[in-house]
Amino acid sequence: MKTIRCIDQRLQLIELPPPAVLQSEALVQVLIAGICATDLEIINGYMDFQGTLGHEFVGIVRECASQPELVGQRVVGEINAACGICEWCRRGLGRHCPDRTVLGIDGRDGAFAEYLTLPAVNLMQVPDDVPDRTAVFTEPLAAAMEIPRQVHLSPGTPILVIGDGRLAQLIVRVLSQNYCRVDVVGHHESKLRRMKGFVNRVFLNQPPPDAQYPVIVEAAGAPSGWAMAVETVAPRGLIILKSTYAGDLNFNLTPLVVDEVTVIGSRCGPFAPALAALAGGIDPTLLIDGEYPISLYQEAFLQAGRPGTLKILLKIGGDVR
Amino acid sequence: MKTIRCIDQRLQLIELPPPAVLQSEALVQVLIAGICATDLEIINGYMDFQGTLGHEFVGIVRECASQPELVGQRVVGEINAACGICEWCRRGLGRHCPDRTVLGIDGRDGAFAEYLTLPAVNLMQVPDDVPDRTAVFTEPLAAAMEIPRQVHLSPGTPILVIGDGRLAQLIVRVLSQNYCRVDVVGHHESKLRRMKGFVNRVFLNQPPPDAQYPVIVEAAGAPSGWAMAVETVAPRGLIILKSTYAGDLNFNLTPLVVDEVTVIGSRCGPFAPALAALAGGIDPTLLIDGEYPISLYQEAFLQAGRPGTLKILLKIGGDVR
Repeated sequence: MKTIRCIDQRLQLIELPPPAVLQSEALVQVLIAGICATDLEIINGYMDFQGTLGHEFVGIVRECASQPELVGQRVVGEINAACGICEWCRRGLGRHCPDRTVLGIDGRDGAFAEYLTLPAVNLMQVPDDVPDRTAVFTEPLAAAMEIPRQVHLSPGTPILVIGDGRLAQLIVRVLSQNYCRVDVVGHHESKLRRMKGFVNRVFLNQPPPDAQYPVIVEAAGAPSGWAMAVETVAPRGLIILKSTYAGDLNFNLTPLVVDEVTVIGSRCGPFAPALAALAGGIDPTLLIDGEYPISLYQEAFLQAGRPGTLKILLKIGGDVR
Repeated sequence: MKTIRCIDQRLQLIELPPPAVLQSEALVQVLIAGICATDLEIINGYMDFQGTLGHEFVGIVRECASQPELVGQRVVGEINAACGICEWCRRGLGRHCPDRTVLGIDGRDGAFAEYLTLPAVNLMQVPDDVPDRTAVFTEPLAAAMEIPRQVHLSPGTPILVIGDGRLAQLIVRVLSQNYCRVDVVGHHESKLRRMKGFVNRVFLNQPPPDAQYPVIVEAAGAPSGWAMAVETVAPRGLIILKSTYAGDLNFNLTPLVVDEVTVIGSRCGPFAPALAALAGGIDPTLLIDGEYPISLYQEAFLQAGRPGTLKILLKIGGDVR
C-alpha cells in the first residue's frame, strides 16, 4: 500500500505491505484524510515521530475480528489508542493513558496511507447524511469542542481567540454556538474573513492596546500567541492553551501569579458530540482549500504550509462522497 | 524617622520626615516587621521598586481622621491599597485594582520604617492574645491561605509542595489543616525538618522519578521549581504557582496542552481568616531565625539571604510583645 512517511523530519511516499491487524483492532481503508498543523509541526521535529503521518480521516472498515458488524461501515476514529485497563482508562480518560499510542503522532502509524489500524472501540460510524469531506473534520472539531467541556463558559462571555488557522476556525464556530461573544485576532485577512458570522470583532495582527478579556483561547500555533495571551488576559482571567509546537519559549511566569491567572491546557475531545455537531449544524467545508491525490503529497504539503491556507485534504482511496 | 530604602537595587538606612497622612488613611507606628523572599527579589530587581521596603508588619495606629476609634489599636494591614471605586474594587477584588499601590512593593513606601501609612480600611485589629511575633506572619499566612480559597482541595488530596522556604513552610501548615496529604521537596534538610508533623513524606532535592501528583504547589521561589512542577504533575492535574521572582524562564508549553494541565497563579489572601488561624492554632514562631534592630539592617538582610534561613524580623520601635 502507499504511505506517506515522516523519517528524520523528511516526507517520503513509499510502498509498504498493509499493517497486521490485532484481535482487538480493525483494519480501515482510508478514503480521505486532512493535513493538520500538528502534521506540519511533526515535520519540524515535534514529538520526534518517525512513521506514517496523519490522524484526521474517514475510512471503511475492511477487517474487524472483535466487532464483525463494523465491516463495511464508514467510520472516523478517536486517535488515542489506550490500554483500556489502567487507572486513567477506567476513569474514562484513555486520552491520558500513559501507555497510549496516538495515530500518526506517537508510536502508531497514521492515516496518510491506504490502510490503517485502530482499536475497534475507537471507531465511530459516520451518519449517512454526513459527507466524507465534512466527517473528516470530526477530530479537529472534537478538539475545539473540548473547550466548553473543560470550562464553564456562560452565555455572553467575552472571549478573545488568538489565531485564525485551522483549529481557530473551528473554535470560533464552537464558541459562537455556545453563545459566547467571540473576538478574534489573526495575521491573515483572508482567513479572518472566513470567520464572518461567528465572531463579534476581528483584529488584524493585534488587539487594541487596552484590551482585557476574562477568557483567552490561545490557538495561534506559534510562540507569539502566548505573549499576547498574557498581555490581554484580565486579572483572575483564564487562558485556554490549544497550541502545540516544537520549540521553547522565553517567559516570565510572575504576571500569572500577580494577576492570579488560570491557564488550562486543552487537547483532544470526544468524537460523538463532534459528529453530532457536523450532522446538525456546523459546516466546516468552507475551510477546505485544496484536495490532492496521495501521489501529489509534496504539492499538498507545500500548499498546507503556506500562510494563507486552511484545510488541505488528501484523497487516498475508494469513492469519496 | 529611620527608614530602610531600596534605591537602584541597593539598601540604605536614612532619616526621613514621617509621611504625610491623607484623610482616608492612617499613620501607623511600626513595632516589628518581617523580611520576605519578595523583599530579597526586589533587591534583585523584581518590580523595579524604589523606596522603603517591607510589607509584613505589626504596628500601632497613631493618627486616623476617618476612623478615630482606630487610634491606639495594634493592627496588621492588607498591603494592597486600592482605589475603592473601580469595577475590581466593587467586586471585592481590590487586590487586583489596576490603580492599586502595594506597600513596600509597588508605588507605596513600606514597613521597614518607624511610620507607614495605609488606607484605614486596610487595617485590622490584632486580638490581644496574638503576640506581635505571631501577628507579623498574618500577611504571608494569608497568602498561603489563598490556595484553598482558589481551588477546592478534597480531604486526602495528595499534594506535592515544591520549596521549603518561608512561604512553603506556611503552605504546608495550611494544607495540612485542610486535611490534604502533603509531600514536600526542598533543598535544605534543616528547613524540611521544620515541616515535621505537617507533611507526609519529605524529599531532599528531588521527588522519586516516577512521582505524579494531581496537585502541585510551586513555592520554590526560583525558576527550577517550574520545571519540577511540570515533570511531576499528573495528566489533568493542577499546578498552583506561588513563586514570584525577577528573570525569565525558558520552557516549552506543549506538555501542559498534551496533559491538559491547569496552572493557577496565586498571590495575596484575605487577612481575617489568617488572623483567626494565628489566634486559633497555627503557630509560626518556630520559623523565626533571628531578630535585629533596624540599625543592624545589613546583618539582618545578610542572614535573611542565606540559604538555610527562614524568617528574620526587624524590631523597629515601641515595646514588642
